[in-house]
Amino acid sequence: MTASPVTTRAPRRLSRRVERMNPSAVREILKVAGRAEIISFAGGLPAPELFPVDAIAAAHEQVLRKEGRSTLQYGVTEGHLPLRQWIVERMRSRGVETSPDQILITSGAQQALDLAARVLLDPGDVVAVENPTYLAAIQLFGGYESHLVPIDSDDGGMRIEALEQALKSQPIRVIYLVTDFQNPRGTSVAPERRDALVRLAEQYGAVVIEDDPYGELRFSGEASAPLAARSSEVVYLGTFSKTLAPGMRLGWMHGPPDLVRAATIAKQSADLHTAMVGQRAAATLFETFDYDGHLQTLRKVYGERCLAMQQALEQHLPSGARWTSPEGGLFLWLELPEGTTDMQLFDRAIESGVAVVPGSAFFCGKPEHRFVRLNFSNQSLERIEEGIARLGQALR
Amino acid sequence: MTASPVTTRAPRRLSRRVERMNPSAVREILKVAGRAEIISFAGGLPAPELFPVDAIAAAHEQVLRKEGRSTLQYGVTEGHLPLRQWIVERMRSRGVETSPDQILITSGAQQALDLAARVLLDPGDVVAVENPTYLAAIQLFGGYESHLVPIDSDDGGMRIEALEQALKSQPIRVIYLVTDFQNPRGTSVAPERRDALVRLAEQYGAVVIEDDPYGELRFSGEASAPLAARSSEVVYLGTFSKTLAPGMRLGWMHGPPDLVRAATIAKQSADLHTAMVGQRAAATLFETFDYDGHLQTLRKVYGERCLAMQQALEQHLPSGARWTSPEGGLFLWLELPEGTTDMQLFDRAIESGVAVVPGSAFFCGKPEHRFVRLNFSNQSLERIEEGIARLGQALR
Repeated sequence: MTASPVTTRAPRRLSRRVERMNPSAVREILKVAGRAEIISFAGGLPAPELFPVDAIAAAHEQVLRKEGRSTLQYGVTEGHLPLRQWIVERMRSRGVETSPDQILITSGAQQALDLAARVLLDPGDVVAVENPTYLAAIQLFGGYESHLVPIDSDDGGMRIEALEQALKSQPIRVIYLVTDFQNPRGTSVAPERRDALVRLAEQYGAVVIEDDPYGELRFSGEASAPLAARSSEVVYLGTFSKTLAPGMRLGWMHGPPDLVRAATIAKQSADLHTAMVGQRAAATLFETFDYDGHLQTLRKVYGERCLAMQQALEQHLPSGARWTSPEGGLFLWLELPEGTTDMQLFDRAIESGVAVVPGSAFFCGKPEHRFVRLNFSNQSLERIEEGIARLGQALR
Repeated sequence: MTASPVTTRAPRRLSRRVERMNPSAVREILKVAGRAEIISFAGGLPAPELFPVDAIAAAHEQVLRKEGRSTLQYGVTEGHLPLRQWIVERMRSRGVETSPDQILITSGAQQALDLAARVLLDPGDVVAVENPTYLAAIQLFGGYESHLVPIDSDDGGMRIEALEQALKSQPIRVIYLVTDFQNPRGTSVAPERRDALVRLAEQYGAVVIEDDPYGELRFSGEASAPLAARSSEVVYLGTFSKTLAPGMRLGWMHGPPDLVRAATIAKQSADLHTAMVGQRAAATLFETFDYDGHLQTLRKVYGERCLAMQQALEQHLPSGARWTSPEGGLFLWLELPEGTTDMQLFDRAIESGVAVVPGSAFFCGKPEHRFVRLNFSNQSLERIEEGIARLGQALR
C-alpha cells in the first residue's frame, strides 16, 4: 500500500451542518469591542461586580472539602437531585407545575436548546421564530438544517395572526421564542398573547420552546406567568448564567416527561453529564444564600443602568432615533434615524470609541439595517452616559 | 380558535436520531450493580480514593478567591489558554506535535467525540469501528444516523487486511478506535499496526478518531506513540476523567486546524464553552501538582488490582474460561467457557452477589454472547478476590 502525500489530498469534506453553522459575525465585533479605549455596549455580559463570588467560592470549598470524592466521581445524566428539587420549587413559585423527573440539568441554557433541537428536529423541519431573534439560536437551528420561518413581531412579540397564518400554511414543528426581555429587542411577549400562543401551538401540534434567561431580572412593570405555566406541553429553558454567574455553565430544561427523557438520552451521548462540582456547589449555596435578596440587587442596578441609557439617548441622539423601553433583562434596541445603516454606524461608533452590535445579524430572512443592539448591564452609569454621548457624536 | 384537549393528541413525534439512540442497557445493569451487597465489576469508574481531592479543592479555592470575577464570567469557546498550553506540552512529550490553536477544551472526551461526529458526519455516512467497541460511541454514532461497519479485531486491534478490505469496498468517512487499553477488551492497537493504519486512512481519505482516555494509565509493557504522533490528520480525544477526576468533566480535542475550528463553531452552538471554574482550577493545579507522581500511584494501584483479578480468575474460574492481559487501563475481557451465555452469567452472578457487564452490548452488528467485561480499578484487592470467587461460583 502507498500513502498519497498529504499535499495532494482533496480539501476535507465536513458535514452539511457545518456549512449551515455560520461563525458569528458578532464574535469578530466583540474582538474589536474588547479594546481598552472602547466603551462596549456590544456584549451580552452580566455585571461581574455583582457576582456573589464569596458565596460561590464558599460553596465550592464546602462540597470539595466535605464530599469531594463523590463530587468528583461520575454522576447521573439527569443532574444532581437536590439542585433539580430546588429548581422545581422555584418554578412552582412562578406558576409552573413540574417535578424532578421533568428537569434535566444542562451546561447552560444553550445546551438545553441544543438538546431540545436534537430530539425534536429532523433536517428540513420548520421552526417559527420571532424576528429579530437570538443570534445563537439562528445558528443552532441552522446546524440542525432546520427551515426557519420568521414571524412578524412587534413590541409584544410574535403577532398572533401572523403565527396562525404560518401554522396554517406549513408544518411548523417548533416555535422558538424568548418570553421576557427578548434578546435583542428587550421586549416581552404581551400578557394577552400568551394563552393564545400556547393554545395555537397545541392546536397545530407544534412544540413551543420557551427560552427564559432574563425572566428573573424584571426591574419594572408587572410580571406575567411564563408560557410553561399555561401548558404542560411547553419546553422551558432556564439558566443561572444571568442570576448567579455564566462561568459555572449551569442551566436546565423543563418539559413533558417523554421529551425530557429523550433529551437525557441525547445528553448521555453529548457529554455524559454536567460537571458535578458546579451542580453541588449551586445546591449547597441555595441552602443558605439570600437568592431573592441578590436578585433584588441585580434588578435595582440593571434598572438604574437601563434608565440612565434611556436618558442619555434622549439627550444625545438626533431626532428620528427611537428605542424600546425594557422592563428587565440586559438589552435595549435602538432604531436609527433615516439615512444611517447599522453597519455605517458600527464603523463610525468604533471611531468615536463606542461599540454596538449591528441589528441586521439578528434577523432571519431579509435583514433590516435600521437597528443596533445596546447592552446596558455591563457598564457603570458614568460610562453609559459617556458611551451614549459618543454614539450621538457618531450619528451626527 | 379552539384548543384540542391534550388527551386526544397524537403521540409526539421525536426526531429520527432519538430512535437511533437506544438508552444504554448498561445503565439499567448499573442500577442493579449499585446494591450494597453486590461487588460490582460492572462500572467504568476510576478509584475515588485516589482522586487528588485536596489539590483540586485548593486549586478551586485559589481561582475563585483570587480571580473569581473573571473566572465566573463568560469565556472563550476554545477554552482557557493556559490549560491548552499545558495540554500542548503534555502531548508533545508523547510525540504529538500540536499548538494551542489545535486544542479545543470540551466537557469530557465524550463531548469531543460528539463534536467530531457533528462536524464530520452526515446521515448515512460510514464509520468503521473495532468490534467490540466503546458502547457510548455506538450510541453516539447511531444518533448521527451513521452506518457502522465493524472491523474484524483481535488482541492487536483492527486487523489491517480487514480494514483495507472495508476501505476498498465502501466510502468510509471515519475510523473510530481506542488506541490503548480499549474499552471493553483492555487490549491495545499493536505497535506494528499503527503506522499502517494511519497510512491506510490517509490513502482512502478517512478521518481517524483516536479516543485515548486510558493511554496515561500504562502499568506494564512498552508504550507506543499514539496515532496522532504518526499523522497530523488524526483527530485525538483526550480527557482528565481517568487521571484527575471525572466529575470535573474536562477533556479536549486535538486535530487539524480546519477541523478544530469547525468543532469550535459547533461547540458555540452546543454549550458556548466549558465551565471556566474547572478549566482554571485544572490549569492552576498543574502549576504545582506532581502530576507524574500522581500517575505513578494510579498505575501502581491499578496494576496491582489487575494482577489480583487475573490471579483470582486463574484460581476460581473453571477451565475453558480465558481473559485478556491488559497492560493498563480499567478493564479486562473475559471469555466464558462453552455452554454459558453472557446474559445467563449476568443473572447468576447477581444471585451470587457480583456484577459484570454482558459483553454482547459492545458488539456492532451480530452480538456475540461469549464475553463479559470486568472493571478492576474500583475495588480493593480483597473485594476483587471475593468478587471473582463469587463469579467462579456463578459459573459452576
